[in-house]
Amino acid sequence: MNLEQMGQAARAAAYTLAETSTRAKNQALLVMADALEAAAEDILAANARDLDAARDNGIGDAMLDRLMLNPARLKAIADDVRNVVSLPDPVGSELDSRVLENGMRLSRRRVPLGVVGVIYEARPNVTIDIAALCLKTGNASILRGGRETFHTNQELVKVIRQALAASQLPQGCVQYISEPGREWVSGLLKLDQYVDMIIPRGGPGLHRLCKEQATIPVIIGGFGISHVFVDDSADLVRSIEVIDNAKTHRPSACNALDTLLVDRGIAVELLPKLSERMAVKGVELVADDEALALLTTGAARVRAAVEGDFDTEWLSLTLGVKLVSGVDEALTHLRDYNASHSDAILTSSLSNAERFINGAPSAAVYVNASTRFTDGAQFGLGAEVAVSTQKLHARGPMGLEELTSYKWIGQADYLIRD
Amino acid sequence: MNLEQMGQAARAAAYTLAETSTRAKNQALLVMADALEAAAEDILAANARDLDAARDNGIGDAMLDRLMLNPARLKAIADDVRNVVSLPDPVGSELDSRVLENGMRLSRRRVPLGVVGVIYEARPNVTIDIAALCLKTGNASILRGGRETFHTNQELVKVIRQALAASQLPQGCVQYISEPGREWVSGLLKLDQYVDMIIPRGGPGLHRLCKEQATIPVIIGGFGISHVFVDDSADLVRSIEVIDNAKTHRPSACNALDTLLVDRGIAVELLPKLSERMAVKGVELVADDEALALLTTGAARVRAAVEGDFDTEWLSLTLGVKLVSGVDEALTHLRDYNASHSDAILTSSLSNAERFINGAPSAAVYVNASTRFTDGAQFGLGAEVAVSTQKLHARGPMGLEELTSYKWIGQADYLIRD
Repeated sequence: MNLEQMGQAARAAAYTLAETSTRAKNQALLVMADALEAAAEDILAANARDLDAARDNGIGDAMLDRLMLNPARLKAIADDVRNVVSLPDPVGSELDSRVLENGMRLSRRRVPLGVVGVIYEARPNVTIDIAALCLKTGNASILRGGRETFHTNQELVKVIRQALAASQLPQGCVQYISEPGREWVSGLLKLDQYVDMIIPRGGPGLHRLCKEQATIPVIIGGFGISHVFVDDSADLVRSIEVIDNAKTHRPSACNALDTLLVDRGIAVELLPKLSERMAVKGVELVADDEALALLTTGAARVRAAVEGDFDTEWLSLTLGVKLVSGVDEALTHLRDYNASHSDAILTSSLSNAERFINGAPSAAVYVNASTRFTDGAQFGLGAEVAVSTQKLHARGPMGLEELTSYKWIGQADYLIRD
Repeated sequence: MNLEQMGQAARAAAYTLAETSTRAKNQALLVMADALEAAAEDILAANARDLDAARDNGIGDAMLDRLMLNPARLKAIADDVRNVVSLPDPVGSELDSRVLENGMRLSRRRVPLGVVGVIYEARPNVTIDIAALCLKTGNASILRGGRETFHTNQELVKVIRQALAASQLPQGCVQYISEPGREWVSGLLKLDQYVDMIIPRGGPGLHRLCKEQATIPVIIGGFGISHVFVDDSADLVRSIEVIDNAKTHRPSACNALDTLLVDRGIAVELLPKLSERMAVKGVELVADDEALALLTTGAARVRAAVEGDFDTEWLSLTLGVKLVSGVDEALTHLRDYNASHSDAILTSSLSNAERFINGAPSAAVYVNASTRFTDGAQFGLGAEVAVSTQKLHARGPMGLEELTSYKWIGQADYLIRD
């Protein structure tokens, strides 16, 4: 099938899905979860081929771990699908409903978006994950995974197709682009006649590509510099705990702390304590000149910050440290360094907290809490489609509702406009 | 100023606006409304120059009327600004607020989008209209009007700048691109570092251009083929009234009826009555073969439909007519002909109404009502920024709330993630 045909099939499937009951969608998901476990042998064999190829290509251990499936991980993926079954279906609920003066009952009803295109890298769990979330919300999906997971994805897609067939749902509900060429990605990004939204799941390069080439709305997100600002009224001892958690709880996550901003009024007290803790946790500090002066005698490794360090999402045990005076200078830093994801203030001051909340340009702003909370599960959304750092449609963690649109419905008695 | 500088100024102004009180924003709007009336002489003189140039260029009467300002129209524009003052400010309201199990208070707070780019044609009222709506919602705006209104817009922008200065708001709050080159439009569309949303106000060509060139999310809308489907259970006499209203109330509007679909079971009765009424209203019918056979002896002018007619948004006293059998065939037509804006079913059948509501791919779906209701004022939104026909962010008439985003706010007591 070429892209045009895939688009047509997806659009047709989307019409069917829009009228498919929640029960039928859930049934298909349960079949899919069971089929995944039943096909474990084939899937793991295919995954082994991908891993061999990756090793031959000299891919690093971290990436290999992301690629790797084992029985436990496969079980977890199947269980995630079962979890999606248990979530409420947002489709059909009404956002508001009222009767206008002229007697028309006007409401907005949640409907599926239609067709969602997803372009992703490495992790094979995304294939099942996103297919399940789209199916649950009545959206057809067109998936394009990374080269590294080619064989694994072939097997996973086979399972999805079986589940669709067994559930009398059109194959167009979930389609996978297997062809290797880059032109298939470019083509998908311009398929605006059929595709309603593009979700890139990958690094900034992939997002940039989508932004530049797509004629379809793109959800940008999943990365960003995260900051913690320690106000001079903060509780020092407890601040160290929050900083430690934000930095070291899972350093590779996009909501992990990148840059620590410390008020000059509290730096002399805080930084030695910080250095001690970071030394214990094996975190290297990258400090501006002022902070460096207070950190050089500390226990933690430290080096002088250079151009670009405060623009860096570390994703590792490295932490930028910079001194500022007050909320305003902290906010200026956030703005200058494109804060967009998760940022926190540690403070006892009500007014500073409120100013930081209002002024921070981020999808999620915290007062006296770790940046690590930006996550669909932590926020109680039940599932996470993506973490958006743009401002349209959805911002921050996106759950099932963010895979829906709405339509206006006006019901009346042969009403005409005066 | 070049675009980069405009973007920077807009971004800086957006930070100021995000922290400006509703009272201060309203004050600036009132100053603007008064200044508009005070500058009437200059504005009308500039408008006269635009009208002269337009006549020299042989521009048609309809377009001239769109360009033309007079004291009454200017007063109406000023009053529209005063109306915006009276609307509630959505910024700062919280969408939901709850306490998570771990004690974090989590909420979503409405915030301005940031910077909005608006590209529009002809009507000079858009300049004031959109500047006022953006200012009210705390958004900075970068405007680019049509060549035809160059002189008028220069004077209107002068008024806006005066009002900003008098209200101690940065000039970057509302900026206007005066330079004529197309490269300024292309440049604005790629200013994603500073601009959060693009609103095109114009025809399909402008929207296509924005879709293809923009690296910024674009709100597509403002046009579409509108349909009325008359089910065989409809009340004939009252159906004629709704069809008449949908077609002739304001034929140039984007929610005016384009194509009438008539169930074969009711066509023999309905079409002669329709022809009679359309003849009175001077509407020409464009009918498929089956409908044509029933219309040729009628009073209204009629011609056979040719390729493309059912894809045409008439914006005039022309009406496509086609026979179908049942809701399914009507829905198939809607899907095949890219229904996206406003569509109605006239019926007495509850199940057909529900199937049409769920199946129609449109932003607004009506049961027994005219398509003409798709409008911010009719829907009680107080103001209309645009009518979106896309599915992300906003669909259908967009009011002030649709000029906002939200941020997640998590407040706790030095909370860390386990």
